[in-house]
Amino acid sequence: MDDEVAIRDLIATWIAASKSGDTETVLRLIHDDALFMVPGMKPFGKTAFAQSSQSMRSVSFEAESDVLEVEIRGDVAWCRTRLAVTMAPDGQKPVRRSGFTLTIFRKSPAGQWQLFRDANLLAVES
Amino acid sequence: MDDEVAIRDLIATWIAASKSGDTETVLRLIHDDALFMVPGMKPFGKTAFAQSSQSMRSVSFEAESDVLEVEIRGDVAWCRTRLAVTMAPDGQKPVRRSGFTLTIFRKSPAGQWQLFRDANLLAVES
Repeated sequence: MDDEVAIRDLIATWIAASKSGDTETVLRLIHDDALFMVPGMKPFGKTAFAQSSQSMRSVSFEAESDVLEVEIRGDVAWCRTRLAVTMAPDGQKPVRRSGFTLTIFRKSPAGQWQLFRDANLLAVES
Repeated sequence: MDDEVAIRDLIATWIAASKSGDTETVLRLIHDDALFMVPGMKPFGKTAFAQSSQSMRSVSFEAESDVLEVEIRGDVAWCRTRLAVTMAPDGQKPVRRSGFTLTIFRKSPAGQWQLFRDANLLAVES
């Protein structure tokens, strides 16, 4: 149960830090060997994620996350969320993307959970 | 190791059965409470998957799957694949979709692995 709380806390921290542009906090929640998957792209890792976050520092960012299920087995967990993200680059019309995610988390020997694999199925709302 | 072999076998069986239109075999590999996720749609379950498979019986179907990683913890496993699917409805131009999947499998008390959650990030090749 503590592990489930830790993972839900991680996701809440991630969303809050993303909203406030605190990339360093987000990066601490990501395993060094993490892979992010989105439709129509090759999987990308933590470095590419960091570069993308850096380039979007001036973009207004809103997000709502709803954790639908978490299951833990030892040092591995999977989690499914419903997620909506609204981004508005300077002076441009906001774009809202929504959908679901399936994520694998991994616990370090020191007990810290981090994102390890992430499948992001969000699509632009029409 | 036996569990990893079992999951790789499950995926190979799935692909072969899908190619030959053997929906019954595919359905046996799916947990009754499974959820399938694709971009831009609500998750759907085994019944909707079966109906969709039934409606595509006359569609020529080719698939190549490459299992990139499998990790097992007790009765839960996750797996990432690269997948390409080509479908050609009667008389129509074949459409090839490719990309990656992230899947959760669950082992029954009797020892049978089944697909439990599936995130399919395939996109039409341009």
